[in-house]
Amino acid sequence: MNKKAPDYGLRIGKLKSGPLNKISDVKGVKVGHYTLDDGYNNTGVTVIMPTEENVFINKLPCAAYVLNGFGKTAGTIQIEELGTLESPVALTSTLNVGLVTEGMVQYTLGRCKAEGEEVPTSVNSLVLECNDGRINHSDKRGVLPGDVFTAIENATADFSEGDVGGGRGMICHGLKGGIGSSSRLVKLGDENYTVGVLVQTNYGALNDLIVNGEAVGGKIAKSISSDESEKGSVIVVVATDIPLSSRQLKRVIKRASVGLARCGSYIGHGSGEVFVGFSTAYSLKRDSKECFCDIRILNEDKMNGVFRAVAEATEEAVLNSMLCAESKIAINGERIHSLAEYAHLFEQ
Amino acid sequence: MNKKAPDYGLRIGKLKSGPLNKISDVKGVKVGHYTLDDGYNNTGVTVIMPTEENVFINKLPCAAYVLNGFGKTAGTIQIEELGTLESPVALTSTLNVGLVTEGMVQYTLGRCKAEGEEVPTSVNSLVLECNDGRINHSDKRGVLPGDVFTAIENATADFSEGDVGGGRGMICHGLKGGIGSSSRLVKLGDENYTVGVLVQTNYGALNDLIVNGEAVGGKIAKSISSDESEKGSVIVVVATDIPLSSRQLKRVIKRASVGLARCGSYIGHGSGEVFVGFSTAYSLKRDSKECFCDIRILNEDKMNGVFRAVAEATEEAVLNSMLCAESKIAINGERIHSLAEYAHLFEQ
Amino acid sequence: MNKKAPDYGLRIGKLKSGPLNKISDVKGVKVGHYTLDDGYNNTGVTVIMPTEENVFINKLPCAAYVLNGFGKTAGTIQIEELGTLESPVALTSTLNVGLVTEGMVQYTLGRCKAEGEEVPTSVNSLVLECNDGRINHSDKRGVLPGDVFTAIENATADFSEGDVGGGRGMICHGLKGGIGSSSRLVKLGDENYTVGVLVQTNYGALNDLIVNGEAVGGKIAKSISSDESEKGSVIVVVATDIPLSSRQLKRVIKRASVGLARCGSYIGHGSGEVFVGFSTAYSLKRDSKECFCDIRILNEDKMNGVFRAVAEATEEAVLNSMLCAESKIAINGERIHSLAEYAHLFEQ
Amino acid sequence: MNKKAPDYGLRIGKLKSGPLNKISDVKGVKVGHYTLDDGYNNTGVTVIMPTEENVFINKLPCAAYVLNGFGKTAGTIQIEELGTLESPVALTSTLNVGLVTEGMVQYTLGRCKAEGEEVPTSVNSLVLECNDGRINHSDKRGVLPGDVFTAIENATADFSEGDVGGGRGMICHGLKGGIGSSSRLVKLGDENYTVGVLVQTNYGALNDLIVNGEAVGGKIAKSISSDESEKGSVIVVVATDIPLSSRQLKRVIKRASVGLARCGSYIGHGSGEVFVGFSTAYSLKRDSKECFCDIRILNEDKMNGVFRAVAEATEEAVLNSMLCAESKIAINGERIHSLAEYAHLFEQ
Repeated sequence: MNKKAPDYGLRIGKLKSGPLNKISDVKGVKVGHYTLDDGYNNTGVTVIMPTEENVFINKLPCAAYVLNGFGKTAGTIQIEELGTLESPVALTSTLNVGLVTEGMVQYTLGRCKAEGEEVPTSVNSLVLECNDGRINHSDKRGVLPGDVFTAIENATADFSEGDVGGGRGMICHGLKGGIGSSSRLVKLGDENYTVGVLVQTNYGALNDLIVNGEAVGGKIAKSISSDESEKGSVIVVVATDIPLSSRQLKRVIKRASVGLARCGSYIGHGSGEVFVGFSTAYSLKRDSKECFCDIRILNEDKMNGVFRAVAEATEEAVLNSMLCAESKIAINGERIHSLAEYAHLFEQ
Repeated sequence: MNKKAPDYGLRIGKLKSGPLNKISDVKGVKVGHYTLDDGYNNTGVTVIMPTEENVFINKLPCAAYVLNGFGKTAGTIQIEELGTLESPVALTSTLNVGLVTEGMVQYTLGRCKAEGEEVPTSVNSLVLECNDGRINHSDKRGVLPGDVFTAIENATADFSEGDVGGGRGMICHGLKGGIGSSSRLVKLGDENYTVGVLVQTNYGALNDLIVNGEAVGGKIAKSISSDESEKGSVIVVVATDIPLSSRQLKRVIKRASVGLARCGSYIGHGSGEVFVGFSTAYSLKRDSKECFCDIRILNEDKMNGVFRAVAEATEEAVLNSMLCAESKIAINGERIHSLAEYAHLFEQ
Repeated sequence: MNKKAPDYGLRIGKLKSGPLNKISDVKGVKVGHYTLDDGYNNTGVTVIMPTEENVFINKLPCAAYVLNGFGKTAGTIQIEELGTLESPVALTSTLNVGLVTEGMVQYTLGRCKAEGEEVPTSVNSLVLECNDGRINHSDKRGVLPGDVFTAIENATADFSEGDVGGGRGMICHGLKGGIGSSSRLVKLGDENYTVGVLVQTNYGALNDLIVNGEAVGGKIAKSISSDESEKGSVIVVVATDIPLSSRQLKRVIKRASVGLARCGSYIGHGSGEVFVGFSTAYSLKRDSKECFCDIRILNEDKMNGVFRAVAEATEEAVLNSMLCAESKIAINGERIHSLAEYAHLFEQ
Repeated sequence: MNKKAPDYGLRIGKLKSGPLNKISDVKGVKVGHYTLDDGYNNTGVTVIMPTEENVFINKLPCAAYVLNGFGKTAGTIQIEELGTLESPVALTSTLNVGLVTEGMVQYTLGRCKAEGEEVPTSVNSLVLECNDGRINHSDKRGVLPGDVFTAIENATADFSEGDVGGGRGMICHGLKGGIGSSSRLVKLGDENYTVGVLVQTNYGALNDLIVNGEAVGGKIAKSISSDESEKGSVIVVVATDIPLSSRQLKRVIKRASVGLARCGSYIGHGSGEVFVGFSTAYSLKRDSKECFCDIRILNEDKMNGVFRAVAEATEEAVLNSMLCAESKIAINGERIHSLAEYAHLFEQ
């Protein structure tokens, strides 16, 4: 089930994708999943490794933006204040945020110790979530702290999409959701830069689903029953190698909302819609003794191309999360279909 | 030139419109224009009267949200702090914000004096703007303080849309923009409530224009040349008779972004995208001696219908602003066409 | 070690305190500690129970405000969006936020189950923290999820202050910090209302300490050596029975910064200074079927008394946290003195 | 009436001041006043010129922070989005914001034209205000657009403080307020940098006034009657030559609240407390064709010294605004005394 939007002839937007069409087109970015499916639990955790270096030692410029805050994401307060990311980025199930945070802390402390760095007494772990309680028995907290390590060990540039990792129990627009990714290239001067997006999709009503401008959801809704309330959340993580300040990153990630709206979102009341973004173009060294840092940022007038890239990559990443996910039976016995089953409605 | 989206067979979204399909479907709301077109100046001011009462004396719950802050809107700081509107809402040209603010102050002071109320030494006037410098010689500041009074005198429920008032010099998606409006009905319990939207549109690139899901802009762009950079701003004003707190109003107006994205916006760098919203369901009396106020607000779980209403009404209001505007010659001699000229591409 | 500021003749501000001079003067509010001191770990968790009801079922109006965001507090995103508190409030050590969040989730799920309420798949747990790594081996994560239950079982109106619960390993202005509390009465109309404050203090340099206007810190600093860098964090929790909206609560809690500044804070770079506040005056019922809620809020013009109450109670609560804490040996062997040892410098 | 705090033996804080002990110790910063006192109007405008260059062409990093938003300041939305200042900074009377904004627009357009730069159609003018309606007949709008030019022409490094310019009609802690300034030196590496502060003070109750730790207000209140309600506003402008990003500047200016709290502020409900800050260390060129900008920012770990400087300079600037102001008769015939009359209560 690895066909993504372009494999169906869907051309989202105007910009070109990178070679993998994933967030990992941004050099150094890798993604790993731990998926738990034992017939009872259907959940997991996905970890984005933002750099091959220890990100606690080499902090990356970062921003977070809350489009709708019915969510339990942990770690955004410090990002807002300091503008830096000092942990990997984890995506999981709502009730598992505590245990995954604990796993993330263990990871950073362990890595610092292993590398001979001073073990910190303060670590900001970024853990994002959506509610998988319709497919997963989330009250069991299937994901344990150690599973974060498994996800990290699995991290690779060529990771799976769909109903894997944190996306295992997701439902999007009444169909199976999950983890999706896409990338776009942005030309600045003579050079190509990359904007990569990864989403965890768990939002929206079937009737509202739009595929590349086509109101596909309404057509599917004629053949299957679906809970029409707009429920659940969506997480968008943006990575780029463009040199940006945290203020600029905040502007950039806000444009993920364009991609979501184009897929049919009305930004539902019950949704935790949190966007985060980081740049790999430079890092800020822990405990640097220098008084000043020399950094390179984008000329603000050049922003529009980056904005478009995020909007396009988000729109496609949502579709990829659905197209790559397999059909699944929910706890209530209802079948959650895969968008891929309805390819005849949108294939071009 | 009064045909609006439904007159072209365009049915934006799923909810019904109010009888006027304008922001003035919210009882008490009126809109007036002062339009200046003397062959040299092409500008104006539009004023939304939120209630027939003196809004400085009977302040309305209100919220403001800045989607992109490349703008000069005045008056949002106090709305953010106190959650109330105490002036009419003016929309005008960027460089005219100062003089229109002066006019708004004159109006409130004069009205309080005329009504025997204590004349205030502090008035928060809400003045929103877009840059009409491609059509209007905006460095001349065509709109004088007194013109605010003219607009207010012209206020009516059945106001004009298109290239009138503050919308006179607007360009939207490379075509003629201006003032547009629409409304949607929301059923809560057994009663119908109204959400009305008024926009001043001055943003976007022609190639990106979408009309009700159709990528119409690309087709028009084949026949006319257009500056493809995303420039300019868009203002969205939301009125409703639903009882909402200012926190809830802020959630509601954020959904205007969905309507903009559906029309083709990428939330351009140079755009001042400011949304404001107010409710007429209750008012807070100036200098009340009571210790407490008893207010009614919406059950938060009922929000989704209101969100949808704002998104749909915003999408349609943008189209109405363009459909009702006539073609115009810009300062550089270029013709700015009306979307209405291309009805064959989207009429249904 | 139970002498509080008034027992030293210190009269902070102008308003009267409630009978307990604690946050629990607000009816229904209780506080419990779990303190871990086994000679190696010196840490704990403090839980504020905001009401005797199940707060997940009867959500309270709430606000959060980040004065300085170098912190790991979890749970503020949803409070910001929805304006409600749906969990107890936990204060603990930085690295323990994950496990305490897990304990809080277990508590809410268990209580809902025990009360025959539908067990939720989504719970927002508010967990605040300061870094106790100078006194506690925080890398061991001494506090386990089950310890949250112990703290909750211990909850009482007449709780201890000082080096207890989450305050066990705190250092404030170079002296021993911890948990402190105070309250103030506010007259509105003919009735007295209560504002209660609880702080967890872990911030500031000794030289900067001010006790009721006296620059006491500089004098103490002559007798003991102290690390002069401004480190660590401070958490302020405000409870009140005054009817306030979440917007109003946000305004109210911001004034905690006045109390901190009066004690000598410069709002240090490394500080997680997070304020939260809730009102017990009304609650919003989970899954209410009503369309609207009728609520009572304070006339905005009456705010100044509430602001003063928060500032005064915060200033005193900081002093109480220090006066009630006993001297302690830090991990590096240094003695962290108690402010009570220097009573001769400020007793009145 | 030029004696400032140090002339009374008052030593606010621990850091040294620059040679002028004014905001103009930051190289390039100048301040000019236009004061109107014709026996009826008592008002004016003060303009801070942030650089000798055209700031519209060479934009400076900038931040704005609203501590309490009962105010009408114009121009912060764009500063928040883009992080840059593109106009001088004007301080005036509440109802005069519109006309002063118009004056500021005229100035920028005129200067660009005079310098052969393209005349912009969009200018963000920063205009801050306090309400001088107790001393000034503010409904007359004494300050006309042209008066902004007078203030700018008067700009000098060695400007007057007290009841001049925008400060003419101010009342602070029940005494005469106005414009005050102070500076502090911050050592970073081997070099001294400067933090300068200018305030326009119009807030607070007499009873609450604190002078360098002494509760002086209560003593003065015994001899004169004073309206005890906390009314009015305070504006704080921070300039520095330290290289800072806009995010860092926002952190820095927040610490002005410490200085205000130390002077006795409770951040009153009716106060427009707006802080703005800019750095002269680098500028961002209008319409630069470069893709990237190389900028230098401060190592975040070095922030504490800058925070302290702002807090100290703000506290002293408030005192200077009062000490330099002369006694004045209010509209209601009451005498507003000068703090200087009570020097015996605090002189050291």
